[in-house]
Amino acid sequence: MDSGGAITAEDGGTWAFGPAAPLRLDSGGQLANVEIAWRSWGTLNADKSNAVLICHALTLDQHVAGTHPVSGKEGWWTRLVGPGRPLDPADWFILCSNVVGGCMGSTGPGSIDPATGAPYGLTFPVITIGDMVRAQAMLVEAMGISKLAAVVGGSMGGMQVLQWAADYPERIGACVCVASAARHSAQNIALHEVGRQAVMADPDWRGGAYARDGVRPEKGLAVARMAAHITYLSEAALQRKFGRELQNDGLSWGFDADFQVESYLRHQGGAFVNRFDANSYLYITRAMDYFDLAAPHGGVLAEAFRPARNVKFCVLSFTSDWLYPTPESRHIVRALNAAGARASFLEIESDKGHDAFLLDEPVMDSALRGFLDSVRTGR
Amino acid sequence: MDSGGAITAEDGGTWAFGPAAPLRLDSGGQLANVEIAWRSWGTLNADKSNAVLICHALTLDQHVAGTHPVSGKEGWWTRLVGPGRPLDPADWFILCSNVVGGCMGSTGPGSIDPATGAPYGLTFPVITIGDMVRAQAMLVEAMGISKLAAVVGGSMGGMQVLQWAADYPERIGACVCVASAARHSAQNIALHEVGRQAVMADPDWRGGAYARDGVRPEKGLAVARMAAHITYLSEAALQRKFGRELQNDGLSWGFDADFQVESYLRHQGGAFVNRFDANSYLYITRAMDYFDLAAPHGGVLAEAFRPARNVKFCVLSFTSDWLYPTPESRHIVRALNAAGARASFLEIESDKGHDAFLLDEPVMDSALRGFLDSVRTGR
Repeated sequence: MDSGGAITAEDGGTWAFGPAAPLRLDSGGQLANVEIAWRSWGTLNADKSNAVLICHALTLDQHVAGTHPVSGKEGWWTRLVGPGRPLDPADWFILCSNVVGGCMGSTGPGSIDPATGAPYGLTFPVITIGDMVRAQAMLVEAMGISKLAAVVGGSMGGMQVLQWAADYPERIGACVCVASAARHSAQNIALHEVGRQAVMADPDWRGGAYARDGVRPEKGLAVARMAAHITYLSEAALQRKFGRELQNDGLSWGFDADFQVESYLRHQGGAFVNRFDANSYLYITRAMDYFDLAAPHGGVLAEAFRPARNVKFCVLSFTSDWLYPTPESRHIVRALNAAGARASFLEIESDKGHDAFLLDEPVMDSALRGFLDSVRTGR
Repeated sequence: MDSGGAITAEDGGTWAFGPAAPLRLDSGGQLANVEIAWRSWGTLNADKSNAVLICHALTLDQHVAGTHPVSGKEGWWTRLVGPGRPLDPADWFILCSNVVGGCMGSTGPGSIDPATGAPYGLTFPVITIGDMVRAQAMLVEAMGISKLAAVVGGSMGGMQVLQWAADYPERIGACVCVASAARHSAQNIALHEVGRQAVMADPDWRGGAYARDGVRPEKGLAVARMAAHITYLSEAALQRKFGRELQNDGLSWGFDADFQVESYLRHQGGAFVNRFDANSYLYITRAMDYFDLAAPHGGVLAEAFRPARNVKFCVLSFTSDWLYPTPESRHIVRALNAAGARASFLEIESDKGHDAFLLDEPVMDSALRGFLDSVRTGR
């Protein structure tokens, strides 16, 4: 869709904001000529009141439903978006955009810096969750949507949802925050730092300028992904899925992938480097580590939510999620309550770990269906 | 001490077994000319009944007490070994040897292969916890000790303790197994595999032959250590110790170590490569991943312990240890009970994570003191 074009039942494109509408950044600078890649399902109604924005997680993108153009796989939340699903395009205009800093069409460190004609690399400014949300707000505004019925996201998507509530409460009706947190913990930061160090240890990273040399830090990025992937699963899920099952009959007595879990991880690492950019991984993990919604409010999270007391919230967590464990969600809910906002909270029993928000969790589906139905019908 | 020399109050050395006494390996082969580096405190009594063997963890060594010859730091279990401490050299002859495969004096992948005159590198055979224990048994026998009063260890040391019980029950009186498990879980294997991949991704690893080229895979090994280090701490410990505290005033808006936890991790990684060999890290993590004490007994752990029913056991775990969580210790204790062995079990309340076994945990100290006193007095 070009600026102002008709939004049809399934649409998508890249919105170019041009030099006159730079993105203001939390770091103090600004980014001109920002492009935001987006995809949508459903039709925006006459009064533009049925728009739902989905915010994606660290390594995901705008391809929530339908077919992913690179992997050829089904969109990552097809379970929730589609006919008869909690977000039915017959009812909603469902929008998702690639975060600024990403690598699926939005401006990021892999984009060409107009000032040099070469990819930004590490000259790209460090961005924040707030910057991602500001770019989304620009997109939504450009589409003529003055108020989103709901903003929905899991993991880093949930952080963006909370940021929307803090920064643009008057522009949203409801928030769904799944398996997330209002700030990155020391352990969260530590895990990301290991991933970044793995990327930066790869000589093919070249100080971030690998594109110039036509190489990619594939080994480092694969190690980062393997480490991260473990944190997305629970111990129980890994044990149930793999246990100590071997790849072949007997041990190899070497360093090949003897165990199925090793082979699985290697596959995860290898597949990831084909679809993700190493510098984007650095920038987006950094944005998450910098995330601390209470910080500008003297550490009082309720103050961040105070202007959002007319927004309806749904907060979900999973029992076996050790990356963003339930206490983080409870912390959010307590702050929402203190701010006077209506928040429903559900901790879902699951042994699937953090990844549960992307997997078959019927309780999550029905909780989202119930909440979104209440948003739609104004109950 | 040379073979047969007198054991004095503090001693140490390297026992060379020569070509006539090869170490039989679980892989089927054998290793000739094995050398085992050891250190001891206290005096072996006349009937050689006061010997306690300490088994060390993955990256530790025989320098349990006293000063470490490389780091200059205090031994890693000085809290437990010394005058007036649970293992008092006035009462006990306390022995610890570097595991085979290690890099602190015992034969390992960094040793010279007599067949080629060059370091083994990846031609070193894959070793197991059973091989480590077999080498210890050779050392203990060479010292003329027919029965150890106790075998004590935490983490991988605890695995060796359990292996002693399974393989040499008649040669031990008691076992202390702290923060350990009878087999490596899928998550344990996955975490180790990430570390190995980080090492092997470093171009300076050179297929394990880095010593030939006078280089070392320092960056890869540092990343492996950083990833592992996070698993040794609990989320609560990281949060208490570091939270979101910054290194300097304000954020750097870059990829320097902004947060104290990042700086800490980088320091841990950097310090580690100065004291540990990358190939030893591969071999020892592999030995741990291969560890499954019940496997040769049709998966029934109690059968492994059946011959050890006259051995006294003390099993300890820590509430916040997510690497070897309490259910793993309970699994051991249930199997010991089923085998008819006497086992006392204590889960210690601690927020320090797996590393608690190396830290100031008064409840652990007093539990060990009580158990070892009962061993010494025959109560």
